[in-house]
Amino acid sequence: MPKAYVLGISMTKFGRHPDTSIQEMGSMAVWDAVTDAGISIEEIGAVYCGHVFQGTGAGQKIMTAVGLTGLPIINLENACASGATAFREAYHSVLAGRYDVCLAVGVEKLSGIYRGGLADVKDLEGAQGLTFAALYALRARRYMHTHGLKPETLAKIAVKNRKNAYYNEKASYGELIDVDTVLNSRLVADPLHFYECTPPSDGAAAAIIVSEEYARKSSGKPVEIAASALTSGKLQFGFIDMTFEDITHRAAQDAYSQSGLGPEDVDFAEVHDCFTIAEILRVESLGFCPPGGMAAWIEEGVTEINGKKPVNPSGGLLGKGHPLGATGIAQIYEICKQLRGQAGARQITGARAGLAMCRGGATTGIEGNACAIHILKL
Amino acid sequence: MPKAYVLGISMTKFGRHPDTSIQEMGSMAVWDAVTDAGISIEEIGAVYCGHVFQGTGAGQKIMTAVGLTGLPIINLENACASGATAFREAYHSVLAGRYDVCLAVGVEKLSGIYRGGLADVKDLEGAQGLTFAALYALRARRYMHTHGLKPETLAKIAVKNRKNAYYNEKASYGELIDVDTVLNSRLVADPLHFYECTPPSDGAAAAIIVSEEYARKSSGKPVEIAASALTSGKLQFGFIDMTFEDITHRAAQDAYSQSGLGPEDVDFAEVHDCFTIAEILRVESLGFCPPGGMAAWIEEGVTEINGKKPVNPSGGLLGKGHPLGATGIAQIYEICKQLRGQAGARQITGARAGLAMCRGGATTGIEGNACAIHILKL
Repeated sequence: MPKAYVLGISMTKFGRHPDTSIQEMGSMAVWDAVTDAGISIEEIGAVYCGHVFQGTGAGQKIMTAVGLTGLPIINLENACASGATAFREAYHSVLAGRYDVCLAVGVEKLSGIYRGGLADVKDLEGAQGLTFAALYALRARRYMHTHGLKPETLAKIAVKNRKNAYYNEKASYGELIDVDTVLNSRLVADPLHFYECTPPSDGAAAAIIVSEEYARKSSGKPVEIAASALTSGKLQFGFIDMTFEDITHRAAQDAYSQSGLGPEDVDFAEVHDCFTIAEILRVESLGFCPPGGMAAWIEEGVTEINGKKPVNPSGGLLGKGHPLGATGIAQIYEICKQLRGQAGARQITGARAGLAMCRGGATTGIEGNACAIHILKL
Repeated sequence: MPKAYVLGISMTKFGRHPDTSIQEMGSMAVWDAVTDAGISIEEIGAVYCGHVFQGTGAGQKIMTAVGLTGLPIINLENACASGATAFREAYHSVLAGRYDVCLAVGVEKLSGIYRGGLADVKDLEGAQGLTFAALYALRARRYMHTHGLKPETLAKIAVKNRKNAYYNEKASYGELIDVDTVLNSRLVADPLHFYECTPPSDGAAAAIIVSEEYARKSSGKPVEIAASALTSGKLQFGFIDMTFEDITHRAAQDAYSQSGLGPEDVDFAEVHDCFTIAEILRVESLGFCPPGGMAAWIEEGVTEINGKKPVNPSGGLLGKGHPLGATGIAQIYEICKQLRGQAGARQITGARAGLAMCRGGATTGIEGNACAIHILKL
């Protein structure tokens, strides 16, 4: 089996950028990734662009702004996992031996178009007004009921991720807050407060993926892609366990099998914390700790940057914001920065392998449209 | 270099189907392709869904209707080349050694949403009201000026493609008409008449792509994918030659190089005849005949089914209709049917290699978002 590597990685500062076009954000990310990789931009063989709401030809628009056209440009959509999906397809193209160098770029501008996180109104859930916040609030209530989780413990995830983001110059929502601030902020969907919900954002991220041969010749700092797993939810009938994610569990098992690394070998993770409860569900479904085990982990500080298993050292979606198409690649940005020892004030000591987990979408009948998990290692 | 094959192929009857959902059209196409391939549906390793206007999670919705979920499902967009792009990415996944069996499905329902073929209104062209019909009318005028093409000759493409479609049970716009009927139909954008413009349509198409090893063991009729080329338009400044397509020329050269087959070795082609003039531009840019040579070819019947180089034996977009995401895979459907000798009344005698050429999109500054060319052979 051939291998592929991340040679360059970048992200723009996520946040509200109503006056910046996707062409500007995307081309900034592309140039930064090219510079980071130390390649000549003409070496890029194909471009994979992940986004959700940017209309037709978003990748073409960005590459026209970059000034590199006349090559394959492909747009991909997998809801909030669109960026991770673009990364994966770029990886496949390199694995297939079609190109030595591929570019994955993720972009989203939600300013001016975001309609409050509704699922598709044509779906059963959307038609009932079940927003994502409401959906995760139901999951939080059930988890609290099953495992006795306290609101104070749940709130600590928001405190941690906002703190990590405070030390991340690419994040707009970093803040040194305490549990009381979280619990006193307004309720969005009981039991989730304002600080427990990810802010919709604008931003872009990009990655340069290269073949093993190219990586070997490079003078850069290649990070190996040890696993790329993607799956969709299974059809579900009858009782659904809202406290454990089958889709995440299956994708993780696939990723562990591909990489030969288990959850115990992964030093840290970026997970899709669109809401505080989501971080708990994901960490447990990844098999990092048993179901119900996260409450103790949170209280013991295990998932803090200086803990035994740091989670979302970047600040996660809660601390960075969530420009849908960009998020999956931004997670991989953090993994690469940590593995290269370039994470500054939020550096995890001695990390050798990291995992990025991204989820997207809700379609009637299945648990989710996509769960993408990448494991990267030195 | 590993190889991959089309083992199963299908399309629904294209046309106006306002009461049929994309779930229904898509799942029909998927089941027909699975049946055609003679595989068990559980053998599918990953799904690539091409569409333009069907919102988030179209592939997931279709696969939920099919009843096969819990596997990678990826949505791709490349304007009118979305289906061809999905086919190509499925092909890459097989080449990469990730899956033995992949499904590509293309779908589009334009009934109720189509707004007249405007380019993106945020683009310069769109803002000026330059519809696709207007764009191709300009090209036709310029071609007539440069090469002395007569409206009567141009109209013969509509006559041929509507006739071919008349013998294709999957086409809704087949009709035995003559040149006068075309020229007496209402002008859409001078010099293009009603019969010279492709009807927006609804439909789906699907392909099962398998590895060489899997194809060898199969009792079906595998067709080899000899080339898969994709490119985007180059940045253009100043004078643009509207009578020759650089994007198509470059994609074709790539496809010929991949396959080791030249235009003289390709027995027939399905090309993107969104308008009559488009067929001329594409056939010449593919290098089948020199620039300006198509007028004589048309008059001599070279591109007829019983001619030396049949073009659009299926009826093309003019005869079948053009459900954007489905079109690219429907072209490959025709190539496979012809190569297998299953094309019935429109069978080309002794065809061993066919070419499918699909184009999509217009972004300010570049000639097109995508041109995808696949060469398939026995």
